[in-house]
Amino acid sequence: MSRSEPRVVVVGGGFGGLEAAKTLRHAWASVTLCDRNNYHLFQPLLYQVATGGLAPGEVAAPIRRVLRGQANAAVLLEEVEQIDLERQEVVHADGRIPYDYLVVATGARHAYFGHDDWEAAAPGLKTLEDALDIRRRIYLAYEEAERCTDPGRLPALLDFVVIGGGPTGVELAGAIAEIARRTLRRDFRRIDPASSRVILIEAGPRVLPGLPPELSASAMAALTAMGVEVRLGTPVSDVSPDGVRLGREWIASRTVIWAAGVEASPLGRALGWPADRAGRIEVLPDLSLPGHPEVFVVGDLAFVSGPGGKPLPGLAPVAMQEGRLAARNIIRRIAGQPTQPFSYHDRGALATIGRRAAVADIRGLRLTGFPAWLAWLFVHILYLIGFDNRVVVLWHWAYAYATFERADRLITESRRAMKAGPSC
Amino acid sequence: MSRSEPRVVVVGGGFGGLEAAKTLRHAWASVTLCDRNNYHLFQPLLYQVATGGLAPGEVAAPIRRVLRGQANAAVLLEEVEQIDLERQEVVHADGRIPYDYLVVATGARHAYFGHDDWEAAAPGLKTLEDALDIRRRIYLAYEEAERCTDPGRLPALLDFVVIGGGPTGVELAGAIAEIARRTLRRDFRRIDPASSRVILIEAGPRVLPGLPPELSASAMAALTAMGVEVRLGTPVSDVSPDGVRLGREWIASRTVIWAAGVEASPLGRALGWPADRAGRIEVLPDLSLPGHPEVFVVGDLAFVSGPGGKPLPGLAPVAMQEGRLAARNIIRRIAGQPTQPFSYHDRGALATIGRRAAVADIRGLRLTGFPAWLAWLFVHILYLIGFDNRVVVLWHWAYAYATFERADRLITESRRAMKAGPSC
Repeated sequence: MSRSEPRVVVVGGGFGGLEAAKTLRHAWASVTLCDRNNYHLFQPLLYQVATGGLAPGEVAAPIRRVLRGQANAAVLLEEVEQIDLERQEVVHADGRIPYDYLVVATGARHAYFGHDDWEAAAPGLKTLEDALDIRRRIYLAYEEAERCTDPGRLPALLDFVVIGGGPTGVELAGAIAEIARRTLRRDFRRIDPASSRVILIEAGPRVLPGLPPELSASAMAALTAMGVEVRLGTPVSDVSPDGVRLGREWIASRTVIWAAGVEASPLGRALGWPADRAGRIEVLPDLSLPGHPEVFVVGDLAFVSGPGGKPLPGLAPVAMQEGRLAARNIIRRIAGQPTQPFSYHDRGALATIGRRAAVADIRGLRLTGFPAWLAWLFVHILYLIGFDNRVVVLWHWAYAYATFERADRLITESRRAMKAGPSC
Repeated sequence: MSRSEPRVVVVGGGFGGLEAAKTLRHAWASVTLCDRNNYHLFQPLLYQVATGGLAPGEVAAPIRRVLRGQANAAVLLEEVEQIDLERQEVVHADGRIPYDYLVVATGARHAYFGHDDWEAAAPGLKTLEDALDIRRRIYLAYEEAERCTDPGRLPALLDFVVIGGGPTGVELAGAIAEIARRTLRRDFRRIDPASSRVILIEAGPRVLPGLPPELSASAMAALTAMGVEVRLGTPVSDVSPDGVRLGREWIASRTVIWAAGVEASPLGRALGWPADRAGRIEVLPDLSLPGHPEVFVVGDLAFVSGPGGKPLPGLAPVAMQEGRLAARNIIRRIAGQPTQPFSYHDRGALATIGRRAAVADIRGLRLTGFPAWLAWLFVHILYLIGFDNRVVVLWHWAYAYATFERADRLITESRRAMKAGPSC
């Protein structure tokens, strides 16, 4: 590479960052992508790992492999700690990387909004490690119930609480209900997994608030038919290792999962850039940082207004389109051309509730039930990065569909986890 | 179940224990299988997990699922700590399980024979956690080399040492050589993975000492052709986090793997039963414990003499045949019949060295190269427990064969691991 090539650094290998790096494929620039993990995570399917339906490697692709054929791109496994805007350098534990253009795409993580002490009892789902932790808790609860000799402790072991009625909460509750009613049906001798209660708690008036109300109603009906108890309009007032408090009601449960909110990665806020309550950075229409035309912010870390002034949702298509525009604006600036503003092409939204049940809103076409599930399946398989993954995932789904089996229900590092909770 | 049914407890869900439980399927007995994990591990393929070729869930099947259809069998996730031979009870952290008949099949673990301090620098490969640790070390070494700015540290990062020339060591060395020469070939920008040295160290005069000498020679040739440096007759005198000492020679390597020996599970020795140097329990010809006709010991924990008085090797077919005989002898004793002695039906031995290279000794028929590799593939697919696993594994192999790709090269829990080693 020539010395005078502009140096582009991309921080974060999620949907936004990876798309930015790929869009720069033919650009006259050297690209360095930093991520603290060696893989790109397909987050829309992470709930499948958390419930044992897919293996970690099936929803994650090595970033190096994705960018292997891109000669102008290098990948570094580093956790970026600071960004030095004055010197134009990214700071990580082992040194600094100078940049001419920067794309910050460090995403979001789950948030407890002032109740960080709830995290130990109610883990969230943002990373592969989170998913394996939740998987361990779900299957370990049944193992502990099977050897439990105190019938009074059984409800807390067999009942599951999911807090948050967005897509992740709905998908998790549906999958756990299937595990209880079908997957584990014949596996235990002393307990009946089908006696599990699965309770989905949503503070607002309906599930899937990002979708049209009639699809919320359809999702609600599908959840109820699967045996999920949905509590709407009920904010959680306390979470402890033994259960959840909803106003005056106490739900005993050893397995509580948090899907009630996310906040932007702390990298943004740590820099003192203007941010909203959820930590999202306000950017100019071309996605650049005010006063720093060489810095672009994309994905869940960016606050970008959509129709009606509301922020665009934290979805993969939003992040990918933003990453693509940021890269194109960098190419334009390298060529001395003016940048262009971002506009979101909304191709729709989807959520799945379980085997054959889903809701979809595709450019105004509203689907429910099996057609929505097929649309969901098609879109997710289509976007899975890495061809071999796609075939394996398809096989696992076909198999799960035929048998209700879940291929990856291992409890790993069980001894550590077994010590963690209060014993039966 | 009737109260008077004899209670059979099986400790350990490996090849021996699981086979014993399955053989009791139609017996007039209630069977309880205890394992500290919720899965049966297909150990012959564990090296594939350690090198990123297969996912953990592809070499492990939930024990509950395997025994789901067996109405007289219950599964308990418990780590057995003691066996009370007088009261006929198995002791675990949460209580005791009484038995009328007992099968002990707790297997073996890797051993350092007086050098336990080597374990941190040179992990062994017996559990899924071991395999994920080794996988993390292998791929992290390349990541650290890519960002290393001190050329003097590069050899230690890029060179790999495998200690022990048995099947596990040979398979690991071959797989690592393939990763270096093929899988990662185009993935890095600053380093050349093909410049890695892979050094296999064997204290004895030949690799695969359990196979006929001409097959050892064939394996040796295949390893050399793949670029593995084999050092025969060279015992290791020291292992540290920076490398390995062989007499006067020092090999700098941050990634050292121990495949040089196993010893029986500590459960046997802790009971004070007569054991050999490797901790294996001496049993009577019918596999029962001397003085305790109700207790059977099978698999890697048992010392059973084969032809010429040498102990039978720690292989899956040995453990399975022993488990089957122990169960049949329990059935005979329940029926008031005399037990029968064990005799091993040797169907042969196999080891693979890499893509298309293997050696096999099948009832005296000695295969090398591609035919041996096909035999190896066939036998392993055939014995994989759980049908969906088999198809996925076959797909991953076909894909790896066509592309040299490895589907599961994730570095999980990388931040913890990155802190563990000395930095570049």
